Amino acid sequence: MRTETGWEIFYDQFVPDTLNHLETVTMIGNGYLGTRGSFAEGYPGANRATFVHGVFDDTPIVFTELANIPDWTALQIKFNDKVFSLAEGTLHSFTTRLDLQYGVLTRQVDWESPDNQRIMINFERFACLHNVHLLMQRLRITSQNFEGQVEIQAPINGYALNEQLMHWQHASNNHQHDANQLVIKTIASKITVAVAQDYRYQGDLTQKSIWNVPMQPTAVFLFGLKAGESVTFEKRTALFTTRDTANPSQAGFELLEQSSGLSWIQIRRQHDKAWNAVWSTSDMVIDSDDDAQIMVRFCLYQLLIAGPQHDDQVNIGAKTLSGYGYRGHVFWDTEIFMLPFFTFTQPQIARNLLSYRYHRLPGARKKAKANGYDGAQFPWESADTGEEVTPTWVPAWVDNEDGKSMELVRIWTGDIQIHITADVAYAIMQYWKITGDDEFMLTRGAQVILETAKFWASRLEWNQSKERYEITDVIGPDENHDHIDNNAFTNRMVVWHLQTAQEIFEWLVSNPDQQADDLLSMLGITQAVSQEWQKKATLVYFPDINEEGIIEQFDGFFDLDYIDFSLYAGRTKSMQEIFGIEGTQKVMALKQADVVMLLYLLRDKFDLTTIEANYDYYNIRTDHEYGSSLGPAMHAIVAAMIGRRGEAYQHFLRAAKADLYDVRGNIKDGIHAASLGGVWQAVVFGFAGLRINQDGWSVHPTLPEGWRSVEFSFYHKGELQRVRVTE
Amino acid sequence: MRTETGWEIFYDQFVPDTLNHLETVTMIGNGYLGTRGSFAEGYPGANRATFVHGVFDDTPIVFTELANIPDWTALQIKFNDKVFSLAEGTLHSFTTRLDLQYGVLTRQVDWESPDNQRIMINFERFACLHNVHLLMQRLRITSQNFEGQVEIQAPINGYALNEQLMHWQHASNNHQHDANQLVIKTIASKITVAVAQDYRYQGDLTQKSIWNVPMQPTAVFLFGLKAGESVTFEKRTALFTTRDTANPSQAGFELLEQSSGLSWIQIRRQHDKAWNAVWSTSDMVIDSDDDAQIMVRFCLYQLLIAGPQHDDQVNIGAKTLSGYGYRGHVFWDTEIFMLPFFTFTQPQIARNLLSYRYHRLPGARKKAKANGYDGAQFPWESADTGEEVTPTWVPAWVDNEDGKSMELVRIWTGDIQIHITADVAYAIMQYWKITGDDEFMLTRGAQVILETAKFWASRLEWNQSKERYEITDVIGPDENHDHIDNNAFTNRMVVWHLQTAQEIFEWLVSNPDQQADDLLSMLGITQAVSQEWQKKATLVYFPDINEEGIIEQFDGFFDLDYIDFSLYAGRTKSMQEIFGIEGTQKVMALKQADVVMLLYLLRDKFDLTTIEANYDYYNIRTDHEYGSSLGPAMHAIVAAMIGRRGEAYQHFLRAAKADLYDVRGNIKDGIHAASLGGVWQAVVFGFAGLRINQDGWSVHPTLPEGWRSVEFSFYHKGELQRVRVTE
Repeated sequence: MRTETGWEIFYDQFVPDTLNHLETVTMIGNGYLGTRGSFAEGYPGANRATFVHGVFDDTPIVFTELANIPDWTALQIKFNDKVFSLAEGTLHSFTTRLDLQYGVLTRQVDWESPDNQRIMINFERFACLHNVHLLMQRLRITSQNFEGQVEIQAPINGYALNEQLMHWQHASNNHQHDANQLVIKTIASKITVAVAQDYRYQGDLTQKSIWNVPMQPTAVFLFGLKAGESVTFEKRTALFTTRDTANPSQAGFELLEQSSGLSWIQIRRQHDKAWNAVWSTSDMVIDSDDDAQIMVRFCLYQLLIAGPQHDDQVNIGAKTLSGYGYRGHVFWDTEIFMLPFFTFTQPQIARNLLSYRYHRLPGARKKAKANGYDGAQFPWESADTGEEVTPTWVPAWVDNEDGKSMELVRIWTGDIQIHITADVAYAIMQYWKITGDDEFMLTRGAQVILETAKFWASRLEWNQSKERYEITDVIGPDENHDHIDNNAFTNRMVVWHLQTAQEIFEWLVSNPDQQADDLLSMLGITQAVSQEWQKKATLVYFPDINEEGIIEQFDGFFDLDYIDFSLYAGRTKSMQEIFGIEGTQKVMALKQADVVMLLYLLRDKFDLTTIEANYDYYNIRTDHEYGSSLGPAMHAIVAAMIGRRGEAYQHFLRAAKADLYDVRGNIKDGIHAASLGGVWQAVVFGFAGLRINQDGWSVHPTLPEGWRSVEFSFYHKGELQRVRVTE
Repeated sequence: MRTETGWEIFYDQFVPDTLNHLETVTMIGNGYLGTRGSFAEGYPGANRATFVHGVFDDTPIVFTELANIPDWTALQIKFNDKVFSLAEGTLHSFTTRLDLQYGVLTRQVDWESPDNQRIMINFERFACLHNVHLLMQRLRITSQNFEGQVEIQAPINGYALNEQLMHWQHASNNHQHDANQLVIKTIASKITVAVAQDYRYQGDLTQKSIWNVPMQPTAVFLFGLKAGESVTFEKRTALFTTRDTANPSQAGFELLEQSSGLSWIQIRRQHDKAWNAVWSTSDMVIDSDDDAQIMVRFCLYQLLIAGPQHDDQVNIGAKTLSGYGYRGHVFWDTEIFMLPFFTFTQPQIARNLLSYRYHRLPGARKKAKANGYDGAQFPWESADTGEEVTPTWVPAWVDNEDGKSMELVRIWTGDIQIHITADVAYAIMQYWKITGDDEFMLTRGAQVILETAKFWASRLEWNQSKERYEITDVIGPDENHDHIDNNAFTNRMVVWHLQTAQEIFEWLVSNPDQQADDLLSMLGITQAVSQEWQKKATLVYFPDINEEGIIEQFDGFFDLDYIDFSLYAGRTKSMQEIFGIEGTQKVMALKQADVVMLLYLLRDKFDLTTIEANYDYYNIRTDHEYGSSLGPAMHAIVAAMIGRRGEAYQHFLRAAKADLYDVRGNIKDGIHAASLGGVWQAVVFGFAGLRINQDGWSVHPTLPEGWRSVEFSFYHKGELQRVRVTE
């Protein structure tokens, strides 16, 4: 990976073994869909995928997953009947370039076929931002010494599998003027998707046909080509689903028709304008650290192409729309890691993401009820319905003496990783405080905070002998230790949540809008209820701070065996893999540090001495390299808070490199979305030290060495603030 | 379903709701592959599938399954661009006819399109028996009032899914002369399959093209058609896999080339000759019971098209090659239910099937070793490798108050339904005794019997206090009761097995062939070992017969609650569904009757009084309607043995109707293969009362009322016997 302008990444070599990495990091998107950067012409082992927000379908084990959409970028190119593929012949040069500023992916190959025909091909694609249903692709084929027939096949292949699983049934093949359309429907969720394409070209066209194969209509173009000459081919795709419109087929043809009068350049102009508007509030400029600059822009780009601008019924999965990892499911990664970026720089997207939670209160109520509690409990993994979709058992092949056998591993997060319910409330409060969007709080946010507070009030367990409320049998953010009691993170966030609910109650009571009264009466929340919450909050057990000032992560943590991580330097797997799932429970090896996370989220509640002591204590007990990808950015922020410039930068780099450098070796499954958002937070809340308070905001810089300045923007109460921070 | 000649079944109405039933019962095949009787042009909800013996690929949960092969029968037909489908327009008449004598499926439709074009189409297909790689299909389109363009698309669609799962990756599209070929490969097992097709036609051809779509090459033909005129179209498919030949692509083109000089009629002649030879030993003629006649022929036909004539590395799954049920896995259904038919009438196929077990001794040794035993233990479910492929956990959606949740059901049969190991030995002995195939016994059969005897010798558990060997924690044939001790069927078959192993040992010792000595020394079986087996056999506990003469099915069976089945008359589900999985364990409701089965298999060991008493006792405790489809034929035989003519016939009909009348409601998953074989046994061993003994054979008829005679053939020691039995 290289960059020249700070606005693009490019690769000037093709290394087949890293194809799936390349496909992930060069993905394009527009907040409606994401398309991996797979080669138009295909390559063995490629992992092609396009996902559209909200297009889920049932699947075994993990309940539901985003269904792979027909690949709008697929093209087969033949020279005199020989298929063009980089898997054959000689590649004289190769460049692929992702323009982060405008989300345009280009690739240029100088290729010589096995029979010594030398051809240059330029590919280009982007997903329009001004109209997210329009997808643009073109290529230019230039012959150096080839003379003969060029065939371009443009299929719309409805056999868009999720790895080996098919989610689609055929509805129809349609045609209108020169446009070609496939309409298909998901098997269980019955979402119809219509993919329409039309084509334009320059060159010596000798034949044009439509192969009207059911499920795979294909437009085919034959051109004559001579040495030194070129053929250009442009394909426009219009994509609609029944999530967008009642008649996606008609909408597709209409959009192609509307765009038919516009040239590629004209469409680019509209698209660029839309991107310029986005970057004008979301960009971040780092003076004198080009590596950091490009990594940060990459993170912001990946967040922006995943953020739903026009849809408040969807959310961003833990791998965005970039791969099969976690199947499009949504975690706390959105609220705690990604949302601040949107809340501060694209509040409309933040509002959409939070509204998704509001719309899914029915699923959350169902979960609370099924577990015997009041109110609403958000699922650990959420997808289309808002019901819990964490797999309960995952089959895993285990090698043993006598061959392989299938064992089932029990996944507990869906049952007991309950802190997500407080995390959602936290994000809503943050959004409200920054944006001042009272209308959202009144119509949506307050209800979420209050119904989830009801859940906590019923979830608390009264310990009579100790006269305190406890929360036992949970998993905190650190998933290396499960079935634990009194997790500091969970207990403290619950206290915060109950106190916040009290605050929201008071706000509603004093709110002159009738809606406020109606809401309270619908939810049955009275002064008495609110006081009860307040009282409970004061009685929730929070671990004492020991003589060294350390907050115990959960009951008994201090009794676990200490592990000297330096003895495992150079390892290439997680501490959990080294000690085993059971073994790790017994030692001080964290996937991520709950207490450090808590100190950051509720930083006003702790003094700097406590923060520093706990950071030092937990930092050396945390698996930064192969633990959770969520951790490093948080450590960077806390390290910056306590003035540890060098450590902060080291943690920041770990987060910033997660995708571009595949430091965890799993980038083929998709982008680490939480880490992207963590990187923005590390710069803004860590290095720049932005603090929001009653009166406004302030910065408290701890810039990394060599950073002359960092510039960024954010909205505060609807006003755009432009900040340039120097040391 | 109707029949006119006793050699065909036909349906003269199309009932869409029963499409999947129709597809199963009208399947065709040739012992190499099976193709369901789906409509060439498709229909909503169709379940199209072609399976080739041995073409397995990995799949979740059940480890491996037969992979659905590209549908060689698919055709899309258009009249002036309107797709022909029975889902639209008016069907003036419909007849589909399966010729059981020659395995030819024809269908005739008199169809009027929504725009009132009336057209008659005749379809015909068969899978050649003289060369199993050649598949024939043709159609004739006759216009009544249509004038215009007829389009016929003949795709080879590599997206041949197993329901939603894809097993294939693309290898190549190839062309030779006018033939079109798709080559694909299974993803995990790496079996290459080449499907080549060529085409011939009569009519006013206006255009012919190949749509060379990767993974779905399609030949397209346009014809002009006038009222009163016809178009005929013939498609020949050559199918080879790397299980058959090193170069399936070349073999496919060569076969098409070879057949190109032959007309449809000439190929039919060769095919018919091959079928005539098969029926000459396998047919069964019933005088004066046309219903029974057609049902029996249907059973024999289904067995014959599933029986591998040329391959001793495959076996017949519990649903033959007819559907997804049990995923092509092989059970004891082969040895105990299907094999007698082959052993007696097609011994070469029987030899192939038994050789499959011999070749899979490595898998059986692995299973014995993994369980801590000696020798070889056959898996309850077997597929390609011969290792256990019974799923251990099966996910099942369960509806509950708060929506649906996924529960996992533990399947125990793979762990403890161990009687299959004795069943295989039983089938080998039966084969040997009937055929006199000493060479098979010497080179293959003996090894299987002896290695599996080793397993039993180590599996027996010594009960010191009772001074006897026991076998605890098993499942017998009656799967309604699991984790039982001292199952009468299992224990007695083990005694038989150990005694038989002793007999085989003596035969090998006295065999002058050096191979016999070599085998014994390789296996380490000495006189001492053999005597040990003999001794153990005498010490295996077999339940005492109580004062009423009843053999207890397993320890404690007599203590279970008696259920009066008559109180549940008219039920439409199994007793297990009524009582629940746990509830059924506690009551006398059998899925099938172990003791009745045992009395049949070892009928020389029991007197008629015992047989009668036990039949009466267990018959009323068995779920004949919705229990195991394996049971009824066995009850028919035992009922006939004791002279219960009417009851025998009633049980016989239950078995004979299983598929044609879908009496169990699950025919869409495939044919009940064990029941097919049971029907043949019911006629031969039940009604005709055939007994084999030292000196030869004899019959002891108990023909159903109204049967004047039944004729059948079988080989005895290599000599064909033709039998006509009258009362």
